[in-house]
Amino acid sequence: MAYTAPIEEMAFLLRQVAGLDELFATGQFGEMEADLVLPILEEAGKLAGEVLAPLNAAGDKAGAQLTDKGVRPAPGFAEAYKAFQEAGWMGLAFPEEHGGQSGPKALALAVMEMVHGANMSFGLAPMLSFGAIEALMAHGTPQQQALYLPKLVSAEWTGTMNLTEPQAGSDVGALKTKAIPNEDGSYAISGQKIYITWGDHDLTENIIHLVLARLPDAPEGSRGVSLFLVPKVLVNADGSLGEANAVRCIGLEKKIGIHASPTCVMEYDGAIGWLIGEANKGLAHMFTMMNSARLNVGLEGVGVGEAAFQEALAYAQERKQGAAPGVDGAAPILHHADVRRMLTTMRARVMAARVICYATGTAADLAEHGASEEARAAAKAREDLLTPIAKAWSTDMGVEVASLGVQVHGGMGFMDETLAAQLFRDARIAPIYEGTNGIQAIDLVGRKVARDGGMAMGVMLGEVRETARSARASNEPQLVQIADRLEAAADALTAATDWMVETMTSDKETALAGATAYLALAGDVIGGHFLAQSAVAARSEAGKLRTSMLALAGFFAETALAEAPGRVAGITGSGNLIREASEALFGLSQ
Amino acid sequence: MAYTAPIEEMAFLLRQVAGLDELFATGQFGEMEADLVLPILEEAGKLAGEVLAPLNAAGDKAGAQLTDKGVRPAPGFAEAYKAFQEAGWMGLAFPEEHGGQSGPKALALAVMEMVHGANMSFGLAPMLSFGAIEALMAHGTPQQQALYLPKLVSAEWTGTMNLTEPQAGSDVGALKTKAIPNEDGSYAISGQKIYITWGDHDLTENIIHLVLARLPDAPEGSRGVSLFLVPKVLVNADGSLGEANAVRCIGLEKKIGIHASPTCVMEYDGAIGWLIGEANKGLAHMFTMMNSARLNVGLEGVGVGEAAFQEALAYAQERKQGAAPGVDGAAPILHHADVRRMLTTMRARVMAARVICYATGTAADLAEHGASEEARAAAKAREDLLTPIAKAWSTDMGVEVASLGVQVHGGMGFMDETLAAQLFRDARIAPIYEGTNGIQAIDLVGRKVARDGGMAMGVMLGEVRETARSARASNEPQLVQIADRLEAAADALTAATDWMVETMTSDKETALAGATAYLALAGDVIGGHFLAQSAVAARSEAGKLRTSMLALAGFFAETALAEAPGRVAGITGSGNLIREASEALFGLSQ
Repeated sequence: MAYTAPIEEMAFLLRQVAGLDELFATGQFGEMEADLVLPILEEAGKLAGEVLAPLNAAGDKAGAQLTDKGVRPAPGFAEAYKAFQEAGWMGLAFPEEHGGQSGPKALALAVMEMVHGANMSFGLAPMLSFGAIEALMAHGTPQQQALYLPKLVSAEWTGTMNLTEPQAGSDVGALKTKAIPNEDGSYAISGQKIYITWGDHDLTENIIHLVLARLPDAPEGSRGVSLFLVPKVLVNADGSLGEANAVRCIGLEKKIGIHASPTCVMEYDGAIGWLIGEANKGLAHMFTMMNSARLNVGLEGVGVGEAAFQEALAYAQERKQGAAPGVDGAAPILHHADVRRMLTTMRARVMAARVICYATGTAADLAEHGASEEARAAAKAREDLLTPIAKAWSTDMGVEVASLGVQVHGGMGFMDETLAAQLFRDARIAPIYEGTNGIQAIDLVGRKVARDGGMAMGVMLGEVRETARSARASNEPQLVQIADRLEAAADALTAATDWMVETMTSDKETALAGATAYLALAGDVIGGHFLAQSAVAARSEAGKLRTSMLALAGFFAETALAEAPGRVAGITGSGNLIREASEALFGLSQ
Repeated sequence: MAYTAPIEEMAFLLRQVAGLDELFATGQFGEMEADLVLPILEEAGKLAGEVLAPLNAAGDKAGAQLTDKGVRPAPGFAEAYKAFQEAGWMGLAFPEEHGGQSGPKALALAVMEMVHGANMSFGLAPMLSFGAIEALMAHGTPQQQALYLPKLVSAEWTGTMNLTEPQAGSDVGALKTKAIPNEDGSYAISGQKIYITWGDHDLTENIIHLVLARLPDAPEGSRGVSLFLVPKVLVNADGSLGEANAVRCIGLEKKIGIHASPTCVMEYDGAIGWLIGEANKGLAHMFTMMNSARLNVGLEGVGVGEAAFQEALAYAQERKQGAAPGVDGAAPILHHADVRRMLTTMRARVMAARVICYATGTAADLAEHGASEEARAAAKAREDLLTPIAKAWSTDMGVEVASLGVQVHGGMGFMDETLAAQLFRDARIAPIYEGTNGIQAIDLVGRKVARDGGMAMGVMLGEVRETARSARASNEPQLVQIADRLEAAADALTAATDWMVETMTSDKETALAGATAYLALAGDVIGGHFLAQSAVAARSEAGKLRTSMLALAGFFAETALAEAPGRVAGITGSGNLIREASEALFGLSQ
C-alpha cells in the first residue's frame, strides 16, 4: 500500500485554519504566495508517495549497515536522497541569501510531514539538517555561515546533533566530551556520543556534526557546555573538501524500529572543530533550535499516524470477514461499526495533531515576520506554548493510532511483513527523543505556563472560547453541540491552568506530578478547538470536506472534549496519592 | 532483571477481594485450603522467577525454528517445560479423576499469570493445553477422556486449538478444512490452518490438536462446523504411541513479538481424527472453552504489565539523571515526579486488571461448585459478564503499561536488547487473539448485557454501590473520597448500560459503534470497584500493604473513575458521527 499525502486537507488546514493565508498577506515571502501552496504540496506528495514510500518496508528489513568504510544506508536511499536534494526541498523555508527559497516554515513542515509519513527513517536525515542549519544561522559567524550554510541548505551535505553520552541523556549537562583549544583557533574534540541519528552515511560528501563538549576550564554541569562544529571531512577556506577528520561511527544501535535510520555511536578522537557562538553557552544555543526540532518530531507522529490510518483503511476495505446488510457474501470489515470507530478515531486524532503542529509552525513564522514587534512577541509566546504540546501530544497520538492500525489488521497486524506493524514499532521512538514527553510536560508547566502566570495559555483559551462562540453563532445544531463541549473543556483547562500556576509556586513537586496529565488535557482542548475551527471554516467548502470536517470535529467533541472536565482531578488531585504510593511501593519519601 | 511474582499481593487479592476464601469454605476442594494459597504461589513464583524468566530475552532472540524434523523450540525451553510438567502445575485445577489436584481455577490462573509474566512465549504452550482439556472434559466420550486427558492434565502432552484459515479469522464459520468419514468411525481431515500457537514442537512426545472442520454434508457457515481431535502421533487403544499422523507444520510466521512461541501454518493431509461432541456443533463446543482461554489471555496482559512495571521500576532506581533534593550527585530518575506518575499508573492499572481477572476466575469456580443451583447460575452470569472485560480491558492495559515501561527507559527502551522493548512487542498480540477486543466488546453488549436486559450488569453495579457504601462507612477521608468517585462512576455506567440495552433493540448499528467505549468504561468502573474493595479490605493489614492499596485505589479513583462520567457521551453520542464520518471519508452509507 502506497502512502498518499492528503494534500487537499493539508492545504485547507494550513490556509484556512493555521493562518498561512494571513502569513502570506504580510508580503514577506517574496515570490511565494498562497496559490502556490497546493502545487507545492502536490509536488512534494509525489516524491513522498512515489519515491520514499516504496522504500519504507524494504528499508526496515535491510536496515543501515556499518562497514569498514563507514555506514551504508539501505538500498535505494541514495537515489531517493538525490531526488529530495535536487528538487530543493531542504531550502524551502530558509533565506534566499543562504540558497533557500524564503518560504514559510509551516509549509516546509507540511512537506516534512509527508516525508515522515512515507518513510520516517528517511525523514530523519533532513530533519537533523534543519537543526544544524538553524544553529548556524542563529549563532555562527558570517565566515562559518558562508562556508557551511549553502551546502546544508542545498542538502548537498547533511547535519547532525551530538548531545547524548551514556551518562548524559535527559541531563545533557552531565556530558564529558572534551574540547582542547588548538593554536589556530580550532579545538580538538575527544569523546564518545551515542544515539546520533544519521551520524554517518554516504548519501552526501560531507556531514556537519554539531557537538556539545566541555572546554578545559569550563564550570561543571550545564553551564560548562559549549557547541562545536565538527565536519566529517575538513573544509578548506575556498569551500573545497580537505582531509578526513578524526571522527567515525564505531557502532550502530539495534532498535525495535526506524531500522533504516542509522543510530550511531560516534567517536571523536581529537577531531578538529570550531566553536559556535559563545563558550559555555552551548546548551542555550542548542535550545534555540530545539523548538523547530521538537515541532518536526511532532510531525513524525502526524505522518506516521496518517500512514497508519491509510494502511488500516485499505486493509479494512480489502479484508472480508462476516456478513453485512446490503453486501452479497462476505463483507469487507469496514462494514463493522467497531472497525469504523477505530478508523474514525484515528482520522480525528491525526487531524487534531496536524492542525496543532501547523498552527505552531505559522506561529514560528509570525514570530519572525509579524508586522509589529508586538505581533512578533505574541506569536513567539504562542509558538513557545504550543511547541511542547505539538511534540508530546502528537507523538503519543502517533503511538496510539499506530496501535489502532495494528488492531484493525487483526492477526496480520502482528506479522513482521505488515506495514502496520512497522509503523507501530517506528512510532514508539518519537515520544522519547528530542526531549522525552515527560520533559515536554515539565517545560510546558514550568517555562510556558507558570513563568508568565498563565498569560500565554490565557490568550490561547480566549481563542478557544472565541471558536466556541463562532460555532454557536452558526445556529447549526451540530456546531452548537460542539460549542457546548468546547466551552466546558475550556473551563476545565482554565481551572487546571489556574491550579498549575498557583501550585508551581506553592508545591512544585505536586504540580510536576500532574504535568503530563496537564499537557494531555491541553492538547485535547486545543486540538478540539482547531477541529471546531476547521468545521466552521469548512462551511463554505465543497460537500465532502465540509461533512467530514463536521463529523470529525463532532466525534472529537463527544469523546476527547466531553472527557475533559473529568480529567482535571487527575491533574490537581493525584500528586499526594502518587507520593503516598511511591513511599509505600518504592520506599521514597519524596 | 528477573521477574519476581508479587505473591503477597496476589494472595491478598485472591483471598480477601476475589473471594477465594469463600470458595474454599464450600468444602469442595478436597485437601486444598486457604492456608495453602501462599505456599503454592511461592512455589510457582520460584519456577517463574528462577526458571522461566531467565529464558525470556534469549528466547526472543533465538525464536523457535522450523527444521526438517519439525519445530525446535528456543534453547532451554525443553528443560523449563520439563520442570513445569514435573511439578504438576498443569493439573492444579483439573479433577483428580483425570490426574489433577481439584484446586480452584482462580488459583491456577494466578499461577499462569506468573508464567506469562516471566515468559509469555512459554506460557502459551500450557495455555493452549487448558483449552484442549476443557473441550475434552465437556464434550469428549468417556473413552476419549480416558485415552487423552491424563496425559494432557499431567502435561506429558500438549494441546492446540486449530480454528483460523486464511479466509476465516474472526469469521470462523467461513472455514474450509474437510473431514471425510472413514469406515472405522474416524475421519480424514484435510486442509490448512494458520496462526496455530505451539502447533508443533518436541517438548512432549505427542500433541493433541483440536481442529474445526466441515463434514461432507454440512450446512454452510458456522452451523456446519464440527470439532475433531487429531493427535500428532496416533494413540493405540492401550495408550501407547503408534504411527505419526498426516499433520505437520509447513511454516512459521515471522512476528513482531512472542518470538519463542512458534506460530505455525499446519497442513492436514488426510490426517486421522475423531469427532468431539456432536456433528455441526463444533463452534458451540469451541465456545465452551473460550471463556477460560479468554480469561487466560487477560492474565497475559496482567503478567506482561507486571513484568513491565518491575522492569521500569528497576531501571528508574538504577538510572541516574539530574539532581533531586536530598540526593548527593546525580539522582535516580525515580526521584522525578513524572517518572513516579508513570510507575504509579502502571501499578494501579495492573492491579485493577489483576483483580478483575481473579474475580472472573472465582466466578468460574463458583459456577461449578456453588452451594445451590441459584448460586451457580448467578456465578455463571457473573463469569460470562466479566470474561470479555477481563480479556479486553486487561490486554489493552497490557499494551498501554508496556508502552509506559518503554517510556520510563527513555532511549534504552527503544533498543532491541531491552526487556522493556520486548514486553512492548509481546504485549501487542493479546488484544488480537482469542477474539479481538472489538469482538469482546460486541460479545459484552450483545450476549452479556442486552440479552438479559442488563440484569447481570445491574447485579454487578449493585456490588459497586455496596463497595462505595462500605468505603464511605469507614469515615476515613481518603476512602470517602474514593466512595464519591465510585458512586459517580457507577451512575455513569448505569446510564450507559440503560442506553445500551435500549439501543441494541432500537438501533443496533449505533449501539455497536459504542461497544468498545462501553467495555472500556465498564472495565474502569469495575476495576475501580475492586481497587476500592481492596483498600477497604486492607485496613486490617500491615502498614505497607494498607498504605499502598489505599494510595493506588485513590489514584485510580482520581484518574479513571473521575473520568467515567465524561465518557458516557463517547458511547451514546458517537454512533451518528461515526456513520457520517464514514460516509464522507470511506463512501459507506452504512
